[in-house]
Amino acid sequence: MNNTSLLQLFELQPGQYVSGESISQELGVSRTAIWKQIKKLEAAGYRFEASRRLGYRLISIPDNLSAAELASRMKSNVFGKEVQLFDSVESTQNIARAAAEEGAPEGTLVIAEQQLNGRGRMGRGWVSPRGKGVWMSMVLRPSLPIYFAPQLTLLTAVALCRSLKRITALPIGIKWPNDLLIEGKKISGILLESAAEDERLTFVIAGIGISVNLEEDDYPVELLEKATSLRIAGGKKLERIDVITDFLQEWEQLYFLYQEQGFSPIVTLWEALSVSLGKPARLITPQGDIVGVPIGLDETGAIRIQLEDGSVKPVFSAEMGEPL
Amino acid sequence: MNNTSLLQLFELQPGQYVSGESISQELGVSRTAIWKQIKKLEAAGYRFEASRRLGYRLISIPDNLSAAELASRMKSNVFGKEVQLFDSVESTQNIARAAAEEGAPEGTLVIAEQQLNGRGRMGRGWVSPRGKGVWMSMVLRPSLPIYFAPQLTLLTAVALCRSLKRITALPIGIKWPNDLLIEGKKISGILLESAAEDERLTFVIAGIGISVNLEEDDYPVELLEKATSLRIAGGKKLERIDVITDFLQEWEQLYFLYQEQGFSPIVTLWEALSVSLGKPARLITPQGDIVGVPIGLDETGAIRIQLEDGSVKPVFSAEMGEPL
Repeated sequence: MNNTSLLQLFELQPGQYVSGESISQELGVSRTAIWKQIKKLEAAGYRFEASRRLGYRLISIPDNLSAAELASRMKSNVFGKEVQLFDSVESTQNIARAAAEEGAPEGTLVIAEQQLNGRGRMGRGWVSPRGKGVWMSMVLRPSLPIYFAPQLTLLTAVALCRSLKRITALPIGIKWPNDLLIEGKKISGILLESAAEDERLTFVIAGIGISVNLEEDDYPVELLEKATSLRIAGGKKLERIDVITDFLQEWEQLYFLYQEQGFSPIVTLWEALSVSLGKPARLITPQGDIVGVPIGLDETGAIRIQLEDGSVKPVFSAEMGEPL
Repeated sequence: MNNTSLLQLFELQPGQYVSGESISQELGVSRTAIWKQIKKLEAAGYRFEASRRLGYRLISIPDNLSAAELASRMKSNVFGKEVQLFDSVESTQNIARAAAEEGAPEGTLVIAEQQLNGRGRMGRGWVSPRGKGVWMSMVLRPSLPIYFAPQLTLLTAVALCRSLKRITALPIGIKWPNDLLIEGKKISGILLESAAEDERLTFVIAGIGISVNLEEDDYPVELLEKATSLRIAGGKKLERIDVITDFLQEWEQLYFLYQEQGFSPIVTLWEALSVSLGKPARLITPQGDIVGVPIGLDETGAIRIQLEDGSVKPVFSAEMGEPL
C-alpha cells in the first residue's frame, strides 16, 4: 500500500466516511497497516476524522508549495529565478547564507514549509508552523557600499507592505524600521543579514516571514496580543503562492528602481506607509533611551527624531517602543 | 632519533659542519634516516647547508612565535586576551570568523606562522610565507550601527601606521582607505569583514597582514615593484612579537577612544598620516571612474574628492589608482 492508492480511495468518495473494512478489502492490507498509513499522512499535513463505527473521512489535504507551480507562476525575473524548496528546516536564513558563501547568485530563494528554529531580530525566535505562512530567505548581491545596507531593510518593508495591501486590502502599516502591523499587531518579520569586506557589501541574506494562514491556536498565548495573521485579520485563507509571487515582483521592481534612482523614492513610499511618524515614542538604544517624535527618514535611512527642545536627531539603530 | 637529539649535536658545535658519519655513530642511525630528519627540520623552518664532503651545518633556527611569550608580553587588555596560535592555515580570517560565529568574545586573536591562502581586498591573494610576517585576524564586537563599519577600517590603518612608525622610524603613510606604504610600496594589508543583522553589526573580523621580515626572494617578481617589507625598507630584522604587542596596544587604545569620543579624533590622525591627500587621483568605482583631488575624510569615513568644477563629492568605496 502506498499513499497514492489510499488517497485515491478517499478521492472516489469525496467528503464521505470510508470504513476500515472496505479499505482493508480494496487494498488487501490489515486494519493496523491502514491506521499507520493514516498517521503518516497526518504528519505530512493531511487531516482526517476518525470514527470507530464509520471509518475515516478525509477533511483536508495539505496546501504544499510546489516548485514547478512556483516556477511557472513567477512574475519576477531575477528574484526567485532559482528556488530551493524544503519541507522542514532549522532556519531558511542559515541555508541561504551557506548558499551565498558557496557563490549562489543574486535572487536565489530558499523557502520552507516549516522552520523549527526560525530567527527574528535581536536573536528572538519566529513562529513558523508547517504550511501556514511564507518562510523564506533570499540572496542579494547589491553592488553597494556597506553604508546603504539599512536602506535595503526599509526597501524590503515597503515592498512587502505594498504587495500585502494590494492582495488583502487590509490596513497594513510599517513600524520603524521594518515591522508590518495590522492594528498594532505584527504580521510579518524582516531580517537582513549583511556580509561586507571593508566598505563593500559582499552579500545580503534577506529573511522574510509572513504570517499568512496562521490561526489563533498556532500562536503561544503570550504572543496573541502582539501578533496576528492575514487570515485572522482578514477572515479568509490566502494562497501562499499568490503572496510569494506578487511580493517578489514588487520587491524586484523597487530594488531595481533603487539601484537606478537612489533612495529618495523609497523614502517617499516608506513615509507614506509608516505608522511610526508623528507620534511620541521611546527609542531604546545601547547608549540609552531617546524620547521624541519620529518625523521622517533622512537620506541615509536613519529615522529623524524631533526632541523636546525642537532639535532633530537622526537615530541609526534602536528598538522602537510603544507610542507614549 | 628525535629532533632534539639531532639538534643538540649541532648546538654542541655552533656554526660548524657535522659529518654524516659522526651523526650516524653518535645517534646510532643510518645516513638515510639523518637525511630524512634534516628535511623534516627544514620543513619546520630550520635552515642547513649540506656538503657531500663536510656534512651538515645548521645556519638558522626558526623564529617561531610562542603563545606563552605572547601572553606574558601582551600590553593590551582585551585585544589578544585569548590567542589561538597556528602553524599553517589556509587563512586566519576564516578561522576567526568561524570562532566568532561560535560566540568567541571580542579580542579573540588568531595568528598563524604561515597562510597557504591568505586573502586580501577584492578577492586578491596575500603573500604570507612561514615565519616572515604577522598574519593574524581578530574578532571585534563593536556595539555599533553598520554605518560605522568603514570607520573601523580607517581606525585600524591609523593604529597600525602609528605603531609601525614608532617601532621602525620608517616613513610610513596611509593610502586611502587602509593600505600602508613606504615610498609607494605596500607593507601591510588590512581587511575588515563585517557581519550585521539589519542595521546593527554583530561582529567584525579584522584581518591584518604585516610584511615584517620578508626578503626580496619571498615575493613573486611581479610584486616587487608594488610591495616591500619592513626588513627590506629598514635594512634590519625585527622581532615579530614586538610588532604584535605594540600594535595591539595602540589599536586597543584607539578603539576605546573611538567608542568614547567618536570618529573625529580618528579623522585627525588619519589625515595627518595620509599620503593620498592633495594629489590628483583616479578613483575606480562600479559606477565608473571619478577623477579629482582627495582633500580629507567626511564624518562618515567617506573620502572627500574635489572635482574639476570645484565641487566636493564624498566617495564611499573605490579602488584608488595611482596619483595622476
